[in-house]
Amino acid sequence: MAPPTPEWVKQLTPSGPQGHELLAAERASSDIPVDQLSTLLHTKEVLDRKQQILTILKSEPVFDKTQNYFAGRTERFETALARAKKLANLKVKHNWNLDEYRTAHDLISEPGPYGLHDSMFVITLGEQGTPEQQERFLTKAQKYEIIGCYAQTELGHGSNVRGLETTATWSPEDKTFIIHSPHLTASKWWIGSLGRTANHAVVMAQLIINGKSFGPHPFVVQIRDLKTHEPLENVHVGDIGPKFGYNTMDNGFLLFNKVKIPHVNMLARFSRVDPETNKFVRQGSPSLIYGTLTWVRSTIVMQAGSVLARGVTIATRYCAVRRQFQDRDAPASEKSENPVLNYTMVQIRLLPLLAATFALHFTGKAMMELYQENQKRMNAGNGNRDSSKRGAGPEETQSGSDILADLHASSCGLKALSSTIAAEGLEVCRRACGGHGYSSFSGIGPWYSDYLPTTTWEGDNYMLTQQVARYLLKSARSVINKEPPTNDTTTILTEFLSRSEVGCAFDIIGSDADLVSAFAWRTSFLTFEALKHRDQNKKPWNDLLVDFYRLSKAHSQYTVVKNFYNALQSPAVTSQIPASTLDVLRKLFRLFALNTLEQEGSEFYASGACSKHQISLARTNTVMKLLKEIRPHALRLVDSWAFDDWVLDSSLGRYDGKVYEDLFYRASVTNPLNGITVDPYPSSDVLFKKVEGIAARSKL
Amino acid sequence: MAPPTPEWVKQLTPSGPQGHELLAAERASSDIPVDQLSTLLHTKEVLDRKQQILTILKSEPVFDKTQNYFAGRTERFETALARAKKLANLKVKHNWNLDEYRTAHDLISEPGPYGLHDSMFVITLGEQGTPEQQERFLTKAQKYEIIGCYAQTELGHGSNVRGLETTATWSPEDKTFIIHSPHLTASKWWIGSLGRTANHAVVMAQLIINGKSFGPHPFVVQIRDLKTHEPLENVHVGDIGPKFGYNTMDNGFLLFNKVKIPHVNMLARFSRVDPETNKFVRQGSPSLIYGTLTWVRSTIVMQAGSVLARGVTIATRYCAVRRQFQDRDAPASEKSENPVLNYTMVQIRLLPLLAATFALHFTGKAMMELYQENQKRMNAGNGNRDSSKRGAGPEETQSGSDILADLHASSCGLKALSSTIAAEGLEVCRRACGGHGYSSFSGIGPWYSDYLPTTTWEGDNYMLTQQVARYLLKSARSVINKEPPTNDTTTILTEFLSRSEVGCAFDIIGSDADLVSAFAWRTSFLTFEALKHRDQNKKPWNDLLVDFYRLSKAHSQYTVVKNFYNALQSPAVTSQIPASTLDVLRKLFRLFALNTLEQEGSEFYASGACSKHQISLARTNTVMKLLKEIRPHALRLVDSWAFDDWVLDSSLGRYDGKVYEDLFYRASVTNPLNGITVDPYPSSDVLFKKVEGIAARSKL
Repeated sequence: MAPPTPEWVKQLTPSGPQGHELLAAERASSDIPVDQLSTLLHTKEVLDRKQQILTILKSEPVFDKTQNYFAGRTERFETALARAKKLANLKVKHNWNLDEYRTAHDLISEPGPYGLHDSMFVITLGEQGTPEQQERFLTKAQKYEIIGCYAQTELGHGSNVRGLETTATWSPEDKTFIIHSPHLTASKWWIGSLGRTANHAVVMAQLIINGKSFGPHPFVVQIRDLKTHEPLENVHVGDIGPKFGYNTMDNGFLLFNKVKIPHVNMLARFSRVDPETNKFVRQGSPSLIYGTLTWVRSTIVMQAGSVLARGVTIATRYCAVRRQFQDRDAPASEKSENPVLNYTMVQIRLLPLLAATFALHFTGKAMMELYQENQKRMNAGNGNRDSSKRGAGPEETQSGSDILADLHASSCGLKALSSTIAAEGLEVCRRACGGHGYSSFSGIGPWYSDYLPTTTWEGDNYMLTQQVARYLLKSARSVINKEPPTNDTTTILTEFLSRSEVGCAFDIIGSDADLVSAFAWRTSFLTFEALKHRDQNKKPWNDLLVDFYRLSKAHSQYTVVKNFYNALQSPAVTSQIPASTLDVLRKLFRLFALNTLEQEGSEFYASGACSKHQISLARTNTVMKLLKEIRPHALRLVDSWAFDDWVLDSSLGRYDGKVYEDLFYRASVTNPLNGITVDPYPSSDVLFKKVEGIAARSKL
Repeated sequence: MAPPTPEWVKQLTPSGPQGHELLAAERASSDIPVDQLSTLLHTKEVLDRKQQILTILKSEPVFDKTQNYFAGRTERFETALARAKKLANLKVKHNWNLDEYRTAHDLISEPGPYGLHDSMFVITLGEQGTPEQQERFLTKAQKYEIIGCYAQTELGHGSNVRGLETTATWSPEDKTFIIHSPHLTASKWWIGSLGRTANHAVVMAQLIINGKSFGPHPFVVQIRDLKTHEPLENVHVGDIGPKFGYNTMDNGFLLFNKVKIPHVNMLARFSRVDPETNKFVRQGSPSLIYGTLTWVRSTIVMQAGSVLARGVTIATRYCAVRRQFQDRDAPASEKSENPVLNYTMVQIRLLPLLAATFALHFTGKAMMELYQENQKRMNAGNGNRDSSKRGAGPEETQSGSDILADLHASSCGLKALSSTIAAEGLEVCRRACGGHGYSSFSGIGPWYSDYLPTTTWEGDNYMLTQQVARYLLKSARSVINKEPPTNDTTTILTEFLSRSEVGCAFDIIGSDADLVSAFAWRTSFLTFEALKHRDQNKKPWNDLLVDFYRLSKAHSQYTVVKNFYNALQSPAVTSQIPASTLDVLRKLFRLFALNTLEQEGSEFYASGACSKHQISLARTNTVMKLLKEIRPHALRLVDSWAFDDWVLDSSLGRYDGKVYEDLFYRASVTNPLNGITVDPYPSSDVLFKKVEGIAARSKL
């Protein structure tokens, strides 16, 4: 599209040591066995799967990424639709299972128009449909004979699901439901895959029988013609327009004008309307959906580690290649410029984030394992044990439901904390790349933009903290009432209460176990403080929201620190890597924990978990020393995350360090804007004198 | 472009109280005279000017914004070029002065292809060109007969100007300079207006005479043909590609292959090559450019206030319209949903930012006034007073150059702090809008994306903090050497040193003056700490960068707090607004100061500026109380920033509160994606069955 590159330009190379030499030297400075650490993080099975699928994707022209960063909204959506179709066909061709299909999506790294069909539409039909309904809808959905979405959020209601305005009124005469949008704010909004793609929707609507409301329930509604794909009568549907990111997805709006659907279209596994008696019937409990939410949030925690790791990989590699200024104290003989990764101001921004990638990964993994193990135990123990009876030993008392409640609350707070760390961390990585971080070719900006909604969906990060606080207050009340501890939270609260008179003396710098205890102490302190405000001082709930937010953050930080610590003690980890690598990971643990502690210094100090002197020492000595010690391993540590260049799609983050060559190539050769020649003078009406392939045009 | 809206949809309105009713009630809850406060912030002259120019812009179709958020890169650039041309013509037609021309740009709120021509190209020719050179280049530039840019940054060098690689070698034989790019990394990069628009560039290149380098100097180089607009021979130039924002601007790259330019093309006001002797000649001092940098940074500080105010305006209005959940403690009778602005968790995010808009505004204003006043004094005092002689009285000792040095250092730190507050604050505002904040129609995301480079240009925000620290260390050394204070910095350091034995006792909650003193104390404490590390403990510079960053931040926060406090004491402010409004502004001062203090709690505590108890009280009592007291005035306070709806271009920030109507209109009526009909099935190769105006196409 751009004019050809002159010969003399093709001869040019970057000045000074070349990127690949610099990165090779970086990699030579550390003995971390990258493949071994990769295997520990991902497992061999997953690494092999990725490699296989990557080979398939790279061979399909539709997945070529070179024009991604240039295309406008419509073009991006068009390409995304083409990719979605190709993936659906590849799934059949290669007989991919769900893991393989998801891996392909991860590698492509962009939301696609089948996104909500493949996930929420299919899942909801499976979980909430009766066998008859699954036969009727799910089978077709799995074969893409109908394409669906999940329509919950409305223009006027996001987090507050009970406030939804769309109605589904039971009509006893003809045994139908009338789906209706009584107001503009009832319009479904933000619904992925709805804007242009879906012809069906699971619509969450207030069920009304005989004038009485029974709360929101799911209804399957056809919205577009299966042949013409035009909206059905009395359905108004479309795309909601451009967004900060996620522009490959057609998030949509949807309004109904008294649309009738048959009785069978209300998903009836847990509740239904009896068509004979016209009564509402609840059957079974949707508690497994509550469990699913915990599971979904745990995956968000684990993904947050790898989401952030992309940014950290890009920034670390680029900061090892980019050289700027000499060290001010360096002798005159060493005149060459310094890789910016050598500056402590760059290290303090990047290395704690590198530590966070591991911390979040191990935390998410531990939560998912705990969840699965507990599900198994609960299934096995069903009927054998009454969870309301509590024995003496901790084994006996830690009943499945108490652990699940703890896990659920933890998962709320951790979802909030981890997605915030990842989103804000990506922006830190982008800025650490200096000016070039602003180019789309950095690969960080577009990735950040697409990730941002995670801070809002599956529970808004601020809203969620109330759930954590409510749970912690409840736990504290039970501890004050001298109920024996039944899970980790009640255990640390009990411990705190028993020692609150004598206080504590944690060696946060010398002992890793003490460091974890300091986080537990501060969380417990804040919990009882909040309880005092609420129960004794009778402060209004609204006045405590900020305290609750801090409390949830403290509890989540404790959970991450604890899980990171535990992982590095577990044989599953220690047996898989050499002692020297384990030592580096333990330094990452200390860096993450102490850097967090220092940032929240006044809370730790106020709680008595550590002294002013300790905090100051942690900052000026220990953290700075850890940065120095981790620095030589930075490249191999990010390498162990094992992102293929094709996946990163970043000039700055190339494995071979050919940063400048790639930036230049993308700008000068692949950039369509260079195919136009402008008329630059205000005296002329002509804007583009020449456009590659298109006639010149005037706009004034 | 989209299909017509059915009649039944047109009938729909939002449920519950309407946006305009809610905002009217908000405005009725406060007695702040919006017009008076607006006039205080902007002056009547500026408000009138804005109104006049706004009327002109609104009447020109090319400035219509309705397709801005939809267009792709090339289209956006094309429209921006059309707008730039129109503006240049309007300037002539209406005989606009520079202020008026800049106002028009501010109102349009997007970077344009003449951006760097109008600013740095013209300014550099004016400041660094001889009269002959101005005649030759500047006159034509002002008439847009040549279009230029300012080419300093290179692919391999940003902040480090001395490291630039482009060379300008003096050729004595034919009295020319040879401009050359010896490496790929020498390519000019990020140069605004260069990519497609400019036909000239001021190129910063290393001057080389007889094999010796004389550092970077400015050269005027023609790069494109004035008629065909094709690049000249041995010039490789183009656009660098898409960015996180700023996509209406054609940032460019530029490589030279031994391009000859005449002797007259080296801008020679301050240094030149004598064509007879072939010697380098320095004449006069470019110190006024140093002053200009201080000026530019002061304007960034003041603009940061209004940049942030756009986000705060949008978020505050929307959070007053958006209702979600009931207050948990509210009696059952008050069942209606609560505007989210009533939640303290929303207030603690938005109201301190609202306070920051005023803090930054008054700080920038004070710095600009101090700069101008001092320039006047220095000009008047030239020759009359020897600044190296120091008398006894403070009047005598505060020489112009000491104040300028102080102002220069402050401006570095404040540029970093204020642009960080504005950029990060905008993102906080965007998230405070919940899900809809992610839509481009919120108006915050696109504005944020375009603003972000401010954190990097005119001195990277991290790099700049070293300059501040260097200056503070130097000042501390002079104070230790018992030199009398000559400006604000040495005054507070002297005060601290004289009291460091006895300590301090600031009433940060009861006295505003003490609150300012506490900020001065903490800054002084950190300064002497850093000095100890560097001078006594001989710590390497690189090991202190993080301390320096904190030190600069502390000094800048002190400067903002001090200037905000001073402004609210000055008759220029107090005489213009009623006492009740002044009282609200003082609450904003306290909110800004105490909230900042609380966030930096451990530093304040470590310095002894306040006690643990005071910090805890500030947070749990004073700040929460201030939020409650300011809350009723929030709407009128943002109204006083006086952004026209046309300028904000935001559904969420509409003055009339018709948030949902506008979101819906933009999505369903103006959204071009709704003009296409897809074929949704993976079994079909067709992607778009129907495209408004374009034939269907297949891509697979």
